[in-house]
Amino acid sequence: MKKLKENEKRGRPDIIHFALLEALGSPLNKERLLQVYVHTNNDYVVTVNREARLPRNYDRFVGLLEQLFELRRVPSKGQALLKLEGKTLPQLLEETKTDYVMAFSRKGSPKTLEEAISKLLEKQRPTVVVGGFPHGHFSETTVKLADEVVCIDPEMLETWTLTSRVIYEYERAVSLPKKRLRQ
Amino acid sequence: MKKLKENEKRGRPDIIHFALLEALGSPLNKERLLQVYVHTNNDYVVTVNREARLPRNYDRFVGLLEQLFELRRVPSKGQALLKLEGKTLPQLLEETKTDYVMAFSRKGSPKTLEEAISKLLEKQRPTVVVGGFPHGHFSETTVKLADEVVCIDPEMLETWTLTSRVIYEYERAVSLPKKRLRQ
Repeated sequence: MKKLKENEKRGRPDIIHFALLEALGSPLNKERLLQVYVHTNNDYVVTVNREARLPRNYDRFVGLLEQLFELRRVPSKGQALLKLEGKTLPQLLEETKTDYVMAFSRKGSPKTLEEAISKLLEKQRPTVVVGGFPHGHFSETTVKLADEVVCIDPEMLETWTLTSRVIYEYERAVSLPKKRLRQ
Repeated sequence: MKKLKENEKRGRPDIIHFALLEALGSPLNKERLLQVYVHTNNDYVVTVNREARLPRNYDRFVGLLEQLFELRRVPSKGQALLKLEGKTLPQLLEETKTDYVMAFSRKGSPKTLEEAISKLLEKQRPTVVVGGFPHGHFSETTVKLADEVVCIDPEMLETWTLTSRVIYEYERAVSLPKKRLRQ
């Protein structure tokens, strides 16, 4: 579970685009072990259907987002691939019944990603919060929602890189690569 | 070191775009331990300067590629960020003086990425070859250039996901995350 936040309203859909492609294409998602949400800084939440096949083409992705903000869901009929609701982050976290929230920030406690993710294994419904803004840090409100804020590298990692690494490290921690090769 | 190949000439620059963003933004690259090349199926090689900051915006990236194919380098003066040369894959591999070539393909020997990358640690100048085409497999010629072809997941992984994971696993294998946190 991830949360991507934009500093400006719909200002950097490219960040969301790359990060969602990393998340949805992952073996963890294919095993139905991942649920992705995008929270915007004007308190919208996009619920991403794990079966959504997003356009690889950026312009078509932006077109999809525009449709989403207009219709509140895409496609307009049938199973929603993306759903938009007005919702704060505390509301979202309560609804998901998460029992642990880990946020990643350069202001957090230094820890390797391996150490950080191993902690999530003890939890039933852990949430990982990844910032989706080009600069700056989480708001104080967001930091307070986290049980733990972790810093895995002294330099800024791009949202899509962090997303990809968190997912892969979690797969590794639950031995998913081995299990899938044995299938 | 990676090689991305297009099935159609300049047909899927989005794949190259995402994969290069993953590679260039990685701590491995920041530590100057990575050199990225893009080999196209009509035998051009793009040498990517590790200090290149590529546009996040897709249209601007395509503009950059167009400029590259016209001028053979960008920017036209000063240090080249991208350089284009007519070159086959065997020529490239010889020039780089690589001592081991590992390719990733679903047709390879099943092995976790962790196992695969641990093998590269014994080598001085290992090369990793990642396919950059939307469908299909490496040509027989390319397969013969590889010392080892590895399959890390029964399903297709996107080029950018594989790129990100290979780099992260290598960083992990050389304890780069710990070293960088201690700096």
